[in-house]
Amino acid sequence: MIVLMTDFGAADPYVGIMKGVIKGISPASDIIDLTHDIPPQNIPVGYFVLKHSCMHFPRGTVFAAVVDPGVGTSRKAIAVKTKDFIFLGPDNGILGFVREEGFGLEEIREIANREYFYRKEPGTTFHGRDVFAPVAAHIDRGADFESLGRNLDSITTMQIPARRITDKGVEIPLLHIDHFGNMIYSITEDDFRGVTRNGDFTLTLMGHAVTEISEHYRSDHPLIALFNSYGLLEIAAPSGNAASMVGLAKGATGEQVYVRLLIP
Amino acid sequence: MIVLMTDFGAADPYVGIMKGVIKGISPASDIIDLTHDIPPQNIPVGYFVLKHSCMHFPRGTVFAAVVDPGVGTSRKAIAVKTKDFIFLGPDNGILGFVREEGFGLEEIREIANREYFYRKEPGTTFHGRDVFAPVAAHIDRGADFESLGRNLDSITTMQIPARRITDKGVEIPLLHIDHFGNMIYSITEDDFRGVTRNGDFTLTLMGHAVTEISEHYRSDHPLIALFNSYGLLEIAAPSGNAASMVGLAKGATGEQVYVRLLIP
Amino acid sequence: MIVLMTDFGAADPYVGIMKGVIKGISPASDIIDLTHDIPPQNIPVGYFVLKHSCMHFPRGTVFAAVVDPGVGTSRKAIAVKTKDFIFLGPDNGILGFVREEGFGLEEIREIANREYFYRKEPGTTFHGRDVFAPVAAHIDRGADFESLGRNLDSITTMQIPARRITDKGVEIPLLHIDHFGNMIYSITEDDFRGVTRNGDFTLTLMGHAVTEISEHYRSDHPLIALFNSYGLLEIAAPSGNAASMVGLAKGATGEQVYVRLLIP
Repeated sequence: MIVLMTDFGAADPYVGIMKGVIKGISPASDIIDLTHDIPPQNIPVGYFVLKHSCMHFPRGTVFAAVVDPGVGTSRKAIAVKTKDFIFLGPDNGILGFVREEGFGLEEIREIANREYFYRKEPGTTFHGRDVFAPVAAHIDRGADFESLGRNLDSITTMQIPARRITDKGVEIPLLHIDHFGNMIYSITEDDFRGVTRNGDFTLTLMGHAVTEISEHYRSDHPLIALFNSYGLLEIAAPSGNAASMVGLAKGATGEQVYVRLLIP
Repeated sequence: MIVLMTDFGAADPYVGIMKGVIKGISPASDIIDLTHDIPPQNIPVGYFVLKHSCMHFPRGTVFAAVVDPGVGTSRKAIAVKTKDFIFLGPDNGILGFVREEGFGLEEIREIANREYFYRKEPGTTFHGRDVFAPVAAHIDRGADFESLGRNLDSITTMQIPARRITDKGVEIPLLHIDHFGNMIYSITEDDFRGVTRNGDFTLTLMGHAVTEISEHYRSDHPLIALFNSYGLLEIAAPSGNAASMVGLAKGATGEQVYVRLLIP
Repeated sequence: MIVLMTDFGAADPYVGIMKGVIKGISPASDIIDLTHDIPPQNIPVGYFVLKHSCMHFPRGTVFAAVVDPGVGTSRKAIAVKTKDFIFLGPDNGILGFVREEGFGLEEIREIANREYFYRKEPGTTFHGRDVFAPVAAHIDRGADFESLGRNLDSITTMQIPARRITDKGVEIPLLHIDHFGNMIYSITEDDFRGVTRNGDFTLTLMGHAVTEISEHYRSDHPLIALFNSYGLLEIAAPSGNAASMVGLAKGATGEQVYVRLLIP
């Protein structure tokens, strides 16, 4: 099975073309779209979405992650083998999570074997079609991982903004605003319970405050906090769009926007 | 075959994750997207779309309808067997149409058998992944409908606004505005012919009037009425967007917006 | 394999319904979405997208192109056989490219055999469901091309605006603005090299100028020109949206918007 994640959107034929190339090489491959609406060229969102989604796919799935502002430059194309999966993508940080605990990193290779490319001389603008789709198809058909190219020691990692402790409290960075306007923050339930020692707390952002963790989205409160299906802290508006309610625009990213956690 | 309808949108990986869970359980299942752009938490639109689409799918299709603002609360998850199909969804009204003539309702069961869940203890925020996707996969693989859980006598039904007869005429509620801006109203061709006795009529809305039924979308009139592919009354603008033309916003729903039918 | 391209969007169930009809006739058919976000009723964009995408699909692919403002009128439904593919669509120009060099046109037939329709008497509003989906399914299952209907001598062609030579330079029409805001123009790399004789040039549009061809999207320049994955001239903004930067709206089309090529 091949899973595609890109920033190509649905309006253009680019994703359909990738599928045409895959089916030409490996007609029996199942192809699933993770999403193609990663914001254009937004590597951190692609990193976040893939990292928190991949574990729900069957063992052996081949992921092609194409958010690739550096296409055509000297940035490498890489393939990563973990205990459960194979990931393909540009070496721009989008696959950097494979070094983290739980992914079971086994091997990183440069994608260099032109036998697997769509054209021996790939273009400089659309490696989704020319490199990642055909390589995913060959791998899913059974090509040896080792045959892709030479072994690499390192992989580019992402600088995901860390939480910071100030005299005003713990500041936790925003990772993502989803389709419902839910704001997802970079702290797991375990970490949150550790920091608050399961005691009282106040979360504040842009003039709003939340003082308890809800079990689900239905609530009498206009704004709630819960641990979402990724296992991360989320601030949601049960009957509306939380990001709109607090005045946070879609383009706002982790560097700029933190929720502040106060412990009495 | 499994058909998915949700309000998850295309920007997030939620639908892709549901497919990953399905393929992990039932690799041979075909999965088709009906739509994932039901307006967030809008149960009536989900009801309308599924009710008027399902009959075009092959016998035996399993539908998972996940528009679920009450996820994690005490609302039941249900499975409905009709003469042709199996429907899965929250018991919040979205499946209520199965009681209507023509669907051939056979049995309603609570989805309670945790053997079929993605995790024995499903989370409180994403039953698309934890309950509906894996149950659809098990059913499509051949699990017994009876094994899902206990028999239920009732199902939550939707209050679809009815047409009302006032001294100004018959007022017919809007059901849906589609991608083209076409406005779809809650009256079938047969009912319309009955009310107008095949004679003269005037449809008025927001200062516009239409006095005949067109056969197709091409017309010299800026605004036309026709019976659409659902068999329902539709008001369309052949060379533009009818809802924009009359000044009707996407968020407007049936309670607020009626077309008025005048018979001389 | 069946490839679908429409202007139906993702919000409505129309594409899902087409897939249901296909699967009811030909359960083993693979179905791939090229795109469903052709701007509503925009035949030139559909023509452009299909013409420049189809060659990347496997031999034998059946394409159904449904951008059909004249549905229900006397416009014909046609099927086109080329050396590699079968194309289905309304005869409104969207398939007109098959006459061009390289496509290997073999035969054009009217789609008239009602044995293949979803209903013997197709409706007047949704030939995607009633005609094109079921005919694609029958063809993909092996129905004879000849059995679709009578041979046609002609096909409606598109008037794609041509480049024009004025005393201010060569004016090249815009074909399409893609998801990234990249502007795609109606001139191939070969033609461009021919016109400029590989020498100096200046491209000007809306007060901006570009004087060189870039190899890829990464650049120090705010606005660049390159030959894209379609082999056509494209003007892009490496770190943003080129169309927004120059002030070109999505609705602007070829007739109105030209890039001017000056050769010293």
